[in-house]
Amino acid sequence: MLIVMSQDATAAQIDAVKARVAQLGFQARPMPGEQRVAIGIVGNDGPVDAAHFEGMPGVLQAIHVASPYKLVSREWHREDTIVHLPNGVTIGGPEICVMAGPCAVESRDQLLETAESVARAGAVVLRGGAFKPRSNPYSFQGLGEPALELLAEARDHFGLALITEAIDEPSLDLVEQYTDIIQLGARSMQNFPLLKRAGRARKPVLLKRGLAATIREWLLAAEYILAEGNSQVILCERGIRSYDDATRNMLDVIAIPLVKQLSHLPVIADPSHGTGRRHLVGAASRAAIAADADGLLIEVHRQPDQAMSDGAQSLFPGQFVELMSEVRSVAAAIGRTVQAPAVVAR
Amino acid sequence: MLIVMSQDATAAQIDAVKARVAQLGFQARPMPGEQRVAIGIVGNDGPVDAAHFEGMPGVLQAIHVASPYKLVSREWHREDTIVHLPNGVTIGGPEICVMAGPCAVESRDQLLETAESVARAGAVVLRGGAFKPRSNPYSFQGLGEPALELLAEARDHFGLALITEAIDEPSLDLVEQYTDIIQLGARSMQNFPLLKRAGRARKPVLLKRGLAATIREWLLAAEYILAEGNSQVILCERGIRSYDDATRNMLDVIAIPLVKQLSHLPVIADPSHGTGRRHLVGAASRAAIAADADGLLIEVHRQPDQAMSDGAQSLFPGQFVELMSEVRSVAAAIGRTVQAPAVVAR
Amino acid sequence: MLIVMSQDATAAQIDAVKARVAQLGFQARPMPGEQRVAIGIVGNDGPVDAAHFEGMPGVLQAIHVASPYKLVSREWHREDTIVHLPNGVTIGGPEICVMAGPCAVESRDQLLETAESVARAGAVVLRGGAFKPRSNPYSFQGLGEPALELLAEARDHFGLALITEAIDEPSLDLVEQYTDIIQLGARSMQNFPLLKRAGRARKPVLLKRGLAATIREWLLAAEYILAEGNSQVILCERGIRSYDDATRNMLDVIAIPLVKQLSHLPVIADPSHGTGRRHLVGAASRAAIAADADGLLIEVHRQPDQAMSDGAQSLFPGQFVELMSEVRSVAAAIGRTVQAPAVVAR
Amino acid sequence: MLIVMSQDATAAQIDAVKARVAQLGFQARPMPGEQRVAIGIVGNDGPVDAAHFEGMPGVLQAIHVASPYKLVSREWHREDTIVHLPNGVTIGGPEICVMAGPCAVESRDQLLETAESVARAGAVVLRGGAFKPRSNPYSFQGLGEPALELLAEARDHFGLALITEAIDEPSLDLVEQYTDIIQLGARSMQNFPLLKRAGRARKPVLLKRGLAATIREWLLAAEYILAEGNSQVILCERGIRSYDDATRNMLDVIAIPLVKQLSHLPVIADPSHGTGRRHLVGAASRAAIAADADGLLIEVHRQPDQAMSDGAQSLFPGQFVELMSEVRSVAAAIGRTVQAPAVVAR
Repeated sequence: MLIVMSQDATAAQIDAVKARVAQLGFQARPMPGEQRVAIGIVGNDGPVDAAHFEGMPGVLQAIHVASPYKLVSREWHREDTIVHLPNGVTIGGPEICVMAGPCAVESRDQLLETAESVARAGAVVLRGGAFKPRSNPYSFQGLGEPALELLAEARDHFGLALITEAIDEPSLDLVEQYTDIIQLGARSMQNFPLLKRAGRARKPVLLKRGLAATIREWLLAAEYILAEGNSQVILCERGIRSYDDATRNMLDVIAIPLVKQLSHLPVIADPSHGTGRRHLVGAASRAAIAADADGLLIEVHRQPDQAMSDGAQSLFPGQFVELMSEVRSVAAAIGRTVQAPAVVAR
Repeated sequence: MLIVMSQDATAAQIDAVKARVAQLGFQARPMPGEQRVAIGIVGNDGPVDAAHFEGMPGVLQAIHVASPYKLVSREWHREDTIVHLPNGVTIGGPEICVMAGPCAVESRDQLLETAESVARAGAVVLRGGAFKPRSNPYSFQGLGEPALELLAEARDHFGLALITEAIDEPSLDLVEQYTDIIQLGARSMQNFPLLKRAGRARKPVLLKRGLAATIREWLLAAEYILAEGNSQVILCERGIRSYDDATRNMLDVIAIPLVKQLSHLPVIADPSHGTGRRHLVGAASRAAIAADADGLLIEVHRQPDQAMSDGAQSLFPGQFVELMSEVRSVAAAIGRTVQAPAVVAR
Repeated sequence: MLIVMSQDATAAQIDAVKARVAQLGFQARPMPGEQRVAIGIVGNDGPVDAAHFEGMPGVLQAIHVASPYKLVSREWHREDTIVHLPNGVTIGGPEICVMAGPCAVESRDQLLETAESVARAGAVVLRGGAFKPRSNPYSFQGLGEPALELLAEARDHFGLALITEAIDEPSLDLVEQYTDIIQLGARSMQNFPLLKRAGRARKPVLLKRGLAATIREWLLAAEYILAEGNSQVILCERGIRSYDDATRNMLDVIAIPLVKQLSHLPVIADPSHGTGRRHLVGAASRAAIAADADGLLIEVHRQPDQAMSDGAQSLFPGQFVELMSEVRSVAAAIGRTVQAPAVVAR
Repeated sequence: MLIVMSQDATAAQIDAVKARVAQLGFQARPMPGEQRVAIGIVGNDGPVDAAHFEGMPGVLQAIHVASPYKLVSREWHREDTIVHLPNGVTIGGPEICVMAGPCAVESRDQLLETAESVARAGAVVLRGGAFKPRSNPYSFQGLGEPALELLAEARDHFGLALITEAIDEPSLDLVEQYTDIIQLGARSMQNFPLLKRAGRARKPVLLKRGLAATIREWLLAAEYILAEGNSQVILCERGIRSYDDATRNMLDVIAIPLVKQLSHLPVIADPSHGTGRRHLVGAASRAAIAADADGLLIEVHRQPDQAMSDGAQSLFPGQFVELMSEVRSVAAAIGRTVQAPAVVAR
C-alpha cells in the first residue's frame, strides 16, 4: 500500500501515519517528492485495509499496490484449474464445454424434449432453473424440488451433467443433492453467507458476475468460496449493466481474457443473458469462444414464444444446432475443440 | 403493454401476436401507423410479462405502459406511509429523523461512548453493525450476537431506537429480536428470499438501494416486502456505482424526490456510504434534506482513524454536532423540523 | 508517479524502468516489498505520462500521485475565483447567482416575455440558445445570429447579463460579440480546439461537464482554457449519464462540493438538464444550493408545452417565482444570499 | 409515438393532448385501458419530438415507436453499404479490412519503419495521427500538417490507403486533401458542426462511437453525415466508459452485430483503444471478427515503450504479425477472408 499525503501535510501528520503503520506491525518507507510525500508500506503478507489511513489528517489517498485476492490469483497459482464432472466432462482444459437448456423447468415434457434436442446438438451439460430469482414478485419463480427431480431424470437419460441455480441456503442444500454444478446467479455474487456455504459444498460452483461488479469484486467473491475449501469454481461472464438499453445487458467479452490472465479459474460466457436477444446469441457465442472462453451457457426452449421466462433470449432448437456448428468452427480456428456430446439414449 | 411490430411484419405475424394476447386472456387493440403497426393490450389488471411477446417473429419491442409495482405505488395509495418506532420516533411524517452511530460495533466502550455523543447531538436512532457484508473475505465481518446485546444496551441507556443490518435468514432471526428497524443492505436488495423473510417480520425494514439498481428495481424489491404483509418499509438512497472513482459511490440525491413522487414510502439518505469521504458528508446531508429526504443515516466514530471499517467516511463526534446544526437550519428553510433528541441518561 | 512491478519482474526489467526514469530526467526511488517492487519517480514538477511505463515488460501499473492539472487546482491557488459581469453581478463570491430563460430563442415575443418574467422573479443573468447542439439532425437547431440580437436587446432592456452557447469557432466568434458569458455545452467539453479558442476569448466561459466526464477530465478541460490565458471560468454540473432512464440525466449534486474542494473556480448547477423533468427542478435546485453551488441555470418558458425544445424540463413562469423563494430560504439557511435582481424596466 | 397518460388524468387533459396532436398535423388514436389511457399518434412520416407532449399536464411519458434515424437504417436500405478506397480496398463487403499504424506520427523514420512492418504483415490501410485530441493540455498534440505529408509519403510508398483524424474544421480541410478516410474520434461524435462538414467532404468518413454514446445516438450522428450527402460512412466501435477501471475502456463487442442489424453501414472495431492494454488486443481482435466486424483498426509502434502516446496499447511489430495470422483463421471460420496486402515496395 502507498499512502499519498496532501501537498501541505505537516511533519506531524506524516509522523502520525508512520506511527500508525508501525502500530499495525508493518514498516513505513517515506518517499519525499518535489510536491508531496508518499509513504510506502512494506512487510505486509496480505492486503492492508485502506480504511486505516484514508481518514487520517493530511492523507490524500491510500493506493493498493498488491491485489487483495490470493487463492484465485494466477500470480500464486500458475496452472489452469480444471473442473471435472461425473460424466467425464471437464471445464478449463483444452476442450470447450457447452451447457444448454431451458431458462426454467416448466414441465416434464418441455424439459425432456429440450434436453434431448440440446444433447443431440452437442451440449454436454444440461441447464434449467428450479429456483428463479425474479425482479418482479409477481413473476414465475420456479417449480422448486419437483423441478430438480425432473432435471436429474433428464440428465441421467441423456448422459449429460447438470447445472442449476441455488438462491439461498435451503435451496443450496437441495440443489447440492441433485446437481453436478451449483450455480450462483448475478444477484447472489455478493451474498457472502451463501458464498461461504458454497465454499463448503462438495460440488463445483459456477459463479456469475454481478450486474455491476468490477473484475476485482468478482474475483474477491470467488476468493470467498476458495477460502472455505472449495477450489472447483467456474466463473461466468453474463453481461453487465450499461447506460444503453439497446440490449438487456452488455456482455463484457474482453473480461474473459482479462480474468484468465488474472486468475487460474475457468471462465465461461452466458450469451443469452449477456445480450437478452435471440438474434445476438450466435455472434456473442462466437465472440466469447474467439476470446478464449472455456465454455458457454445457452438458453434453448422448444417453443421460446411460449416460455414462462426469458423467451426473447431463448434459441429455437434448430438455431442451437447452427450455433454449435459455428462454435466448433471458431474453436478450431484458435486451436481448441468442443467436447464431444455424450451418447444420447431414449 | 404496447407491442411494436417491425416495419415489414407480415399479416400472419400480426395475427399471431393478437392470438397470443387473446390466449393470455386480454384484448388486443391494433393501431396501424404510416410505417408500422403497434398493438395495445388492454384488460390486464397488473403488468404483463414482455417475454411473452419479445421472442415472437415480427415483434420489434414490447413496451410497458403500466408500472409493474402496485402496493408501493403512490398512484394507488396517496397518503404518506409513516413508520412508528417504540421510542416515539416517526419516519415519513413532517419531522426529519436522524440515525447515527459507528459502522460496526467494535467494543462496549466504543459503542457506548459513540452512542452517548450522537444522542447528545440529537440523533434519535442508533446505528451499528453486528453482521457486516464485506467484499473482501479477509476483512472484519462483525461481532455477531454479542454486538446485538451491546446495541440493545446502548439503545436502552440513551432512549434511542435501534437499527442494525441482517445479511441472511439466521442473522435476521436474531436481529429481529433485538432491533427496532431491520436494515437490508445494498448487496441484499435483490436477495429475494431474504426480502420475503423481511416481509414476514414484525419490525419495520429499511431497504437500501442496490449498487446499480434502477428506481424500478428498487421499488419492486420493496414490493416483495409489502406483498408478504409488512408495510412498514423505509427506503434508503446510499449512492450508486458510477464510472468515476472520485468518490466511493455517487449519491443520487434526485432519486429522493423522484421516489417520493412515485411511492408513499418514506425515503432517507446515507451520505456516509453515498460519498465515502468524511469531508463530503456535511454537504451531502444538507442536499438530501433540501431535496425532501425524511431522514439521514450517518456514520460517527469516536476515533475514525482507529475504526475497523469505513474510517474514511465516519465523522468525528464534533463534526456530527456541527452537521446536526446545519441539518436543522436547512430543514427549517423548507418548513420541516428535526425530531427532538431523546432524553439522554447515564 | 509510482511504477508497480509484477511479482515476478526480473532484475533486468526493474533496471530498465529505472533507466527509462533517468532518461526522462527524473530520479527513481525503488521500494522493495515482500511481494513485489514499486518504483517511485521524484524530481518531476508536473505530471509524467503513464504511457512511458505502462507498456514496459514487468510493469503491472503506473499510478499517478500528483494531480494532472495545476492552474485550476486549489492546491496551488487557495482563494476562490470570482467572475465579474458588466451588470455588477458576480459568480463565485458569497452571493448566489441565478441564470434563467428559455432553452432556445424562438421569437422576439417569446424571449422578451420570458426575460421579463425571470427578471421580475429575481434572475440576474438571462439564458437562451441561438445555436443548439441536437442529437437528432432533424430537430430545431436554433435561429443563429438573429437570436443573438434579440438576446442582447432583452438583456439591455431588463438590466440582466447574458449567457448563450457557442458550438464551434464561427459561432464563438459571433457569441463573443454579443454575450457576457460564453457557454460551452456538455458535448463540447472535450472539443479541445474550441476550448483553446475560448481560452483566448475576452469574456468569461461557462464550461458544462461532459455527459460521462470524470471530475478529473472536467478539470483538465478547464485547464485548457486557463492555459490559454482566460482565468474567468465557471464550471456547471448538468447531470451525467447513468444506467437508469428514470430521469434524463443524473444530477451529480455531490460533484459540486467535491469540485469546490479541488478547485478555486466557481461551480453552478443546471437542474433543468440535470433532471429533464419539470417536477424535479425545484428539489434539485434546493439540493444544489444546500451543497454549496454558486449559482443555478434554469430553463423557463412562457408556455413550456409549446416550446420547440426541452419543454418537459422548462418551468412555467409561476413555478420559477416559487423556486426563487425556496432558493432564497435555503441560501439563508447556509449563510448565503441570492443576488438582488437588476432593476426591471419596460 | 405513444403518449401514456397518468392514471388520474382528466378528460380535459386527454382532450388537450389530442388537440396538440391535431395541431401538429397528425391523428390521435386513443387507447383506453383498465388503468389509464394511452394515445397513439399516426400520420407522421418521421419522428415526432417527445418534447411537445412530455411537459403537458396529465402526461406520464411519451414513447418513441419509430426509430429516429432513416438514412442509416437497414429498415429503409436493405443492402450493405460498401466503401471503396483508391488502392482497391473495400470496407463492408465480404472481405475484412485491417488498418494499422502508430497512434501518432512522431518522425519520418518511425512512420516509415512502422508502415513497412504493418504492410508486410498484411494491413491495407495505414493509420497515424497528425492532430491528436488529448485530455491533458500538456500532452503531445501531434505534428500537424508535416505529419500529413509523411503519412501521404508512407501510404504511396507501400501501396496502402490512409486514414487520419480531423479534430475541427481547419484540420478537416487539411486532412481531406491528404487522406483516403477522414477519421472523426470519439470526442467528436457529437460535434455536430464537424459532422455536417464531414457530410460535405468528398472522402469516406470513419465515425467512432462516443465515450458514452448509446447505439441510437451513434446512428443519429451518422445520420448527420448522410443527411449532408456523404453516404460513405464507416462506423467504429472503440470501447465505452464503464464503472470498472480494469481496462481503459470496455469494448462493446456485441454492438457490432447489433449495429449491423440496425444499419447498412460497415462496422469495424478498434481493439487498441477498446482495451487500452497490449496483452488484450489479440483476443479483442479475434472476438470482433467472430462477431462480424468488417475490419480492425490497430495501433502498432516499432518501439511501444518509447511511444509519445498510447504506448501501453500499441503492439510490437512481431505481435501484429501474429495477430494477422489469428485474424485470418477466425475470418475463415466464419466464411470470410482478410483483404490481401498491397504490394510492398521500398
